[in-house]
Amino acid sequence: MSEEPGRTTRRFLTPPVRQVHQHLCNRMERLGMSAHIDAVGNLRGLWTPANATGKRLILGSHIDTVPDAGAFDGILGVVLALDWVQIATDLSLPLAIEVIAFSEEEGVRYGVPFIGSRAVAGTFDNKILAFEDSDGIRMDEAIRAFGLDPTKVGEAVIGEDAYGFVEIHIEQGPVLETEDLQVAVVDGIVGQSRLGFRFSGHANHAGTTPMHLRHDALTAAAEWIVCVESSVREASTGNDPGLVATVGKVAIKPDAENVIPSQAEVSLDLRHMSNRTRTWWCGELIHKARDIGQKRGIDVEYVVNLDEGAILMDKDLSLRLAQAVKDARFPMKSMPSGAGHDAMIMAGCVPTAMLFLRSPGGLSHHPDEAVREQDVEAALRVGERFLQRLATEVR
Amino acid sequence: MSEEPGRTTRRFLTPPVRQVHQHLCNRMERLGMSAHIDAVGNLRGLWTPANATGKRLILGSHIDTVPDAGAFDGILGVVLALDWVQIATDLSLPLAIEVIAFSEEEGVRYGVPFIGSRAVAGTFDNKILAFEDSDGIRMDEAIRAFGLDPTKVGEAVIGEDAYGFVEIHIEQGPVLETEDLQVAVVDGIVGQSRLGFRFSGHANHAGTTPMHLRHDALTAAAEWIVCVESSVREASTGNDPGLVATVGKVAIKPDAENVIPSQAEVSLDLRHMSNRTRTWWCGELIHKARDIGQKRGIDVEYVVNLDEGAILMDKDLSLRLAQAVKDARFPMKSMPSGAGHDAMIMAGCVPTAMLFLRSPGGLSHHPDEAVREQDVEAALRVGERFLQRLATEVR
Repeated sequence: MSEEPGRTTRRFLTPPVRQVHQHLCNRMERLGMSAHIDAVGNLRGLWTPANATGKRLILGSHIDTVPDAGAFDGILGVVLALDWVQIATDLSLPLAIEVIAFSEEEGVRYGVPFIGSRAVAGTFDNKILAFEDSDGIRMDEAIRAFGLDPTKVGEAVIGEDAYGFVEIHIEQGPVLETEDLQVAVVDGIVGQSRLGFRFSGHANHAGTTPMHLRHDALTAAAEWIVCVESSVREASTGNDPGLVATVGKVAIKPDAENVIPSQAEVSLDLRHMSNRTRTWWCGELIHKARDIGQKRGIDVEYVVNLDEGAILMDKDLSLRLAQAVKDARFPMKSMPSGAGHDAMIMAGCVPTAMLFLRSPGGLSHHPDEAVREQDVEAALRVGERFLQRLATEVR
Repeated sequence: MSEEPGRTTRRFLTPPVRQVHQHLCNRMERLGMSAHIDAVGNLRGLWTPANATGKRLILGSHIDTVPDAGAFDGILGVVLALDWVQIATDLSLPLAIEVIAFSEEEGVRYGVPFIGSRAVAGTFDNKILAFEDSDGIRMDEAIRAFGLDPTKVGEAVIGEDAYGFVEIHIEQGPVLETEDLQVAVVDGIVGQSRLGFRFSGHANHAGTTPMHLRHDALTAAAEWIVCVESSVREASTGNDPGLVATVGKVAIKPDAENVIPSQAEVSLDLRHMSNRTRTWWCGELIHKARDIGQKRGIDVEYVVNLDEGAILMDKDLSLRLAQAVKDARFPMKSMPSGAGHDAMIMAGCVPTAMLFLRSPGGLSHHPDEAVREQDVEAALRVGERFLQRLATEVR
């Protein structure tokens, strides 16, 4: 179910999404769920048990992908949500369960991520309906072409009857594999800063300019890149566990083999669960860049392009999930998510918890993305225990 | 005399070259010289004194420029050569003087430098006549369009009667200015190595991959760039004066803010007067790259793209030039040239020496390139003493 043969690519409201909907609808019907598609293309299936109290547990994840993606990012969480519903049919659960297959999370088609969960959480900004994709198709046109009504996005919002939201997702990182664990409960989504630095020196002839008379923008930037890595790595094994910093983009001028670089522009991506820690480290790394520049006669400027706070998962719901992990006899690991998820958006309007499954090789957004059968089984066992607890504890 | 209004751009055999020829020819005629243009467009003026012994001193430099060049690189050496002829007219010099305005040195139009001096030195490779410029004009067509005969390149070669070649050129570097000197005698053109390094690690999610589980190709390359700079700088102030190393090009993959770089390709330009020292340092820096790679689990590959030996200037002729510098009461400085020059090509067929003039700000290949009047005067004084010595010592 892909836009491209031989590769998994499934952008927001493209034809393969309809195939996914059809496939999931069949499953929902077999489970006795009623299904509909809301105005932004989220497939929503409702299972209502005989002893429902009126409250609703929401489960789900997204069904869109990045280009040339793996087979599990997002969709696995939807399929597992339906398996949890199947498990619930054997329990005397006092909650209805709504499974949501979010239509958009990756932000590929319109450059805006979380379109599906924003509509459900009530934080969908109508002005993005006018955004155009790379083919010049406006979002509202795409919604209409899919047979939906873009004026009804507001109706997608969940009501007061929501008990909580749980998302199951692959980790997309190497932590669980490294620690030989199968699952973890996510305690929050890290906050993220993105900065751009520009180191400016003087271009000069690589042959005629002695080493001590240079103002090389690249060597200054390189010294800083090494400093970012070493200081953040040290902190992550000490006072600031989980701290990560990445220089992922570099552009130098004039970028000629025989000319000393006059300018180096580099990006910084810094993430941590504590906004205070993250802010302190941004300041520290800016400070280090300026120190290096001053020592070398290199001008350093920076801009902050993103400053997004950490999102905490709901303590009570996460605790229930953690107890279920223990009930199912798995070692309990709590960890932050370094990547964004629909759970981050849902947390703004409903108590939210998240379960991670091990990612072999830490690989994601790649066709070799994988998941182990035993870890899928672990997620089912955790679900069974989680729903059992809800059956006995919720009224 | 430029291809572009407001900027100095004068490529091989373009219309402004004809203007330069006309201007220089007028000057040559006033000096009583006979002038002709050889088959690659070198303007050659011969001055023959009454007491000529049959030997010929050759003076000159190039008249082409890089795009948006300064006003002095090359052409100043031709104008000063004519001034030296004027000085010679008052001396009883036993040598004829040929002034050559080389048509091509920068390599801009056909991607091949030193076209003019290679024809004169007899190292012109006829296959480059088939090379095309960016407009698809073959070099032999360009030569014909200029009114010359490409089948006669062989006739441009200097004969057995050449006594020596002296080139006057701006330093294009900051050494003389830094040492508060006006002129220097060049002892050689440094040898040059160019290598390309590829550091290969693993791309990974910037948010979900802990610092200690990364194989970041960029931080490995950055550590090496810093190491190149610090070790070469230290050597240049110690055992290997004049050693320079430059990383001028960088390209990383995937070059995205939120992805750990999987690949970093960087260039290395390394120059020194001693081929042995240069070769040793190439090996040392390759070794350091591999050490850094090994320590980090990063694969390091390299290719050698250029390995050009140093060219020594002629000892005797350089000594005469050095004596002239002292005779003219200037502090005598001997230094290598970090850049290539026609003198490097000419040294292969005739005893060659070179005089550098201070470059304010070390600036060249830039419209702000400058030269001080007092330094031009110094070059004239050195010429006077040099020619006086020849007048008394050569027979």
